[in-house]
Amino acid sequence: MELSSCEMLQQERRLISQEKGLPMRSEDGWSPSTLSGQSCLPELLHSWKPQRLLIPAEIAKEVAKLLEMKAQLGGEEGKHKFVLKTPKGTRDYSPKQMAIRERVFTAIINCFKRHGAEVIDTPVFELKETLTGKYGEDSKLIYDLKDQGGELLSLRYDLTVPFARYLAMNKITNIKRYHIAKVYRRDNPAMTRGRYREFYQCDFDIAGQFDPMIPDAECLKIVHEILSDLQLGDFLIKVNDRRILDGMFAVCGVPDSKFRTICSSVDKLDKVPWEEVKNEMVGEKGLSPEAADRIGEYVQLHGGLDLIEQLLQDPKLSQNKLAKEGLGDVKLLFEYLTLFGITGKISFDLSLARGLDYYTGVIYEAVLLQQQNDHVEDPVSVGSVAGGGRYDGLVGMFDPKGRKVPCVGVSIGIERIFSILEQRVEASEEKIRTTETQVLVASAQKKLLEERLKLISELWDAGIKAEILYKKNPKLLNQLQYCEETGIPLVAIVGEQELKDGVVKLRDVATREEVNIRRENLIEEIRMRTSQL
Amino acid sequence: MELSSCEMLQQERRLISQEKGLPMRSEDGWSPSTLSGQSCLPELLHSWKPQRLLIPAEIAKEVAKLLEMKAQLGGEEGKHKFVLKTPKGTRDYSPKQMAIRERVFTAIINCFKRHGAEVIDTPVFELKETLTGKYGEDSKLIYDLKDQGGELLSLRYDLTVPFARYLAMNKITNIKRYHIAKVYRRDNPAMTRGRYREFYQCDFDIAGQFDPMIPDAECLKIVHEILSDLQLGDFLIKVNDRRILDGMFAVCGVPDSKFRTICSSVDKLDKVPWEEVKNEMVGEKGLSPEAADRIGEYVQLHGGLDLIEQLLQDPKLSQNKLAKEGLGDVKLLFEYLTLFGITGKISFDLSLARGLDYYTGVIYEAVLLQQQNDHVEDPVSVGSVAGGGRYDGLVGMFDPKGRKVPCVGVSIGIERIFSILEQRVEASEEKIRTTETQVLVASAQKKLLEERLKLISELWDAGIKAEILYKKNPKLLNQLQYCEETGIPLVAIVGEQELKDGVVKLRDVATREEVNIRRENLIEEIRMRTSQL
Repeated sequence: MELSSCEMLQQERRLISQEKGLPMRSEDGWSPSTLSGQSCLPELLHSWKPQRLLIPAEIAKEVAKLLEMKAQLGGEEGKHKFVLKTPKGTRDYSPKQMAIRERVFTAIINCFKRHGAEVIDTPVFELKETLTGKYGEDSKLIYDLKDQGGELLSLRYDLTVPFARYLAMNKITNIKRYHIAKVYRRDNPAMTRGRYREFYQCDFDIAGQFDPMIPDAECLKIVHEILSDLQLGDFLIKVNDRRILDGMFAVCGVPDSKFRTICSSVDKLDKVPWEEVKNEMVGEKGLSPEAADRIGEYVQLHGGLDLIEQLLQDPKLSQNKLAKEGLGDVKLLFEYLTLFGITGKISFDLSLARGLDYYTGVIYEAVLLQQQNDHVEDPVSVGSVAGGGRYDGLVGMFDPKGRKVPCVGVSIGIERIFSILEQRVEASEEKIRTTETQVLVASAQKKLLEERLKLISELWDAGIKAEILYKKNPKLLNQLQYCEETGIPLVAIVGEQELKDGVVKLRDVATREEVNIRRENLIEEIRMRTSQL
Repeated sequence: MELSSCEMLQQERRLISQEKGLPMRSEDGWSPSTLSGQSCLPELLHSWKPQRLLIPAEIAKEVAKLLEMKAQLGGEEGKHKFVLKTPKGTRDYSPKQMAIRERVFTAIINCFKRHGAEVIDTPVFELKETLTGKYGEDSKLIYDLKDQGGELLSLRYDLTVPFARYLAMNKITNIKRYHIAKVYRRDNPAMTRGRYREFYQCDFDIAGQFDPMIPDAECLKIVHEILSDLQLGDFLIKVNDRRILDGMFAVCGVPDSKFRTICSSVDKLDKVPWEEVKNEMVGEKGLSPEAADRIGEYVQLHGGLDLIEQLLQDPKLSQNKLAKEGLGDVKLLFEYLTLFGITGKISFDLSLARGLDYYTGVIYEAVLLQQQNDHVEDPVSVGSVAGGGRYDGLVGMFDPKGRKVPCVGVSIGIERIFSILEQRVEASEEKIRTTETQVLVASAQKKLLEERLKLISELWDAGIKAEILYKKNPKLLNQLQYCEETGIPLVAIVGEQELKDGVVKLRDVATREEVNIRRENLIEEIRMRTSQL
């Protein structure tokens, strides 16, 4: 905990007393209770009294002296208090973690490129007003920058709003892009479960006026491809539509003004049981118990095309224009997903609501399933790893004339995925290389640093990945050990005799075989041997 | 400029007056001078007086009413003022710019990996105290986050201090790592010259206790490799040593306490002429003109090993312990650089000082040279693109016991490099592809969307990069045009007849040749044709 300036002043008084060899005045006015006082300056002056009574000008002078001493002491004191950590909810990535992260990114980027996406980048912060009014109740989690003069700025909360700002600003009406970057939320971190305040989002979005549900279906295909490719175990993609939700609210008797807040309650169904959600709707949000019960019946429904057909026949829902539109689109979506052959992992789920304000149509969320243990039959969700939907109004909020650009997209959250893969690597004791070095340039005898530098320079210039130990006279054993530890497969050994003969001894670290290679053939030999690895 | 809440209240008063059809009270108490008043609420109430005198409770009520109206107006007003831009000193990267940026990153990362570096990542912000006291005069350029409760945070100013914090925190005494990430400086941006407030640094550092100058020489080799590889034209790497500078200051008669500030003055020599620097030293910083003149003689020296030898014989400098150590090391460094064959582009330059506080030994900076025009003989520097040096004390500042970890590193600044390459691409009219799509799945007739979706799904699952137009019945001409525009080399055309025959028509966009390929051979054929591209 930080010390208040009051407590600091008191500490310094103690230090100054000690330094000056003054006696501590523990008897007159300085007691533990003083430490919790709201204002300590009068107290302090009282206890730190010079030999006689002070007049106001002198008091000011004494305070100034104290403050000056405080400033001088500041540096020393800072050293002792120093906390060596990353900010709450954030972490560093070690080389080993980076190697795992790179694998995940590669799989995701390959998928985005396979679907013909371009890539863009935006600044880590936006004008504060750009983010205002886009995230509903979650806006309180936005990180603001300090006002140091100039514009008011906030760290981005997601990549979707900056994307919409980018489209409006550049008058782009048609693009398929991905964007992989960190976003920031002042949430309560739960880092063991992969919840951070700084975390990556991998977003793929399609903007433009197109025939219905074709881009939407591609987004779901992408989630399916990525989660299959990463081999994270079984998963399920839940699908719903904001228009079906709104239509459902209407026919259940929810007043228009309560749609968004009741939607927020429904969004909690993946974490808390229905009874609790109902209590929130009725108790906190003033919905009638009857309306809540009617919602309760709908939100337990999930299925496939058959359920969609059934709801299209539902006497109440089919009368609602919005719900009918939504159901029609979701039906078309499922037909396309059938052509893609992926409906096996997709569930139309009336309880899916998604938190953010800006969705206007289809919404979806992917969860990983995990056998809780062998005795339980139903797989258990271990949390969302991807989500997205259609947001046809967001770009229009930025356009001076309100021109809309329909958009649909998906965001892959890699932190949970990364946690799972990291645990798996730990468990398997798989050895992960953190460098790509092909060869260590070594020497068996002393005084060969210059020869090692000359050889490694040649290798670097030929594009070979090579290292040397930064020692004038390293022991051969240490050099070989370094290769074992870091997984370097080859050692190029220079020695007096080899130099005379115009050769280099090339050693295979795994087999310990050594052969002399003519210097002019060395690069080719290393390339040949490491291309098979 | 933002309005103060006081000014806003006054504006709203005006708006409310207009809305209610009330007359504006410009005569009683509202004048321009009011706008600069410290507190406006009494003024405001005075001017906004209802028909009779108010009692305190009524005043409170009126204020509440005003504030409520303000809140209601807030939304509307915000809409009009909305500015569609990125924050000052920042920019978006378009797909085309990203393609160029990727090229630069690839060249740099390849070089770092060639030298056996691991990679790490750290959060975009650090605890404020982590950055405190590391950057000297530049500390004022640090972005702070707003205090929203919890820790005080700042955006990272460079990657070196977070690296040192990472080493101390994890007790790492030995690592070679790279880190590519954005850093933040509240500087005056000059974006046309590649100076931004948010910009990338590409850092390579070697930490550990090693034999002198071997890692230092590798850092310079890396700069040389990257600048050669990127083909940016001629360049020069200036080298100096902080100990030589300090020794030089000592023998010139600069008092110890002025070393750092005089060093800052010397650092300006690449931008302003000596006379101006001398004026600063003598006029602002109180150095004697004689001492300044002695410095002036040294700082115009630059050369190679011969100059180092000459200075080692310099009657004054050779008597200074620090300078002698520095000169000895720089001599060794040049010997290694000779073995690397890169001394041709390296200049020992006594005017190089580098701004940051934390350097302790060798320092260097790379500048691009450009023939100003054909009539001028001397190449002109167009600015620094890389810099670095040895900082043996920084990790110790973070270690609770002050344990030191010697470090040396280099930071490549890609913004200037990127600007140059971008201009070059613009000038050459080179067409840059922003996607990697291999094939467009098209149809010649209507009602074939389902067949297109089935085929593209097969291609995606086989790892082929493929797109379709998101139209139910796109015209063939539009589909072919899309390929021309985006550089897609192949079109796979499905048609009624082809479906019957079990083939797909594969069209080469460049040659316009079309051949029927049996469906089961299509994937292999596309792979074969696009592997040569």
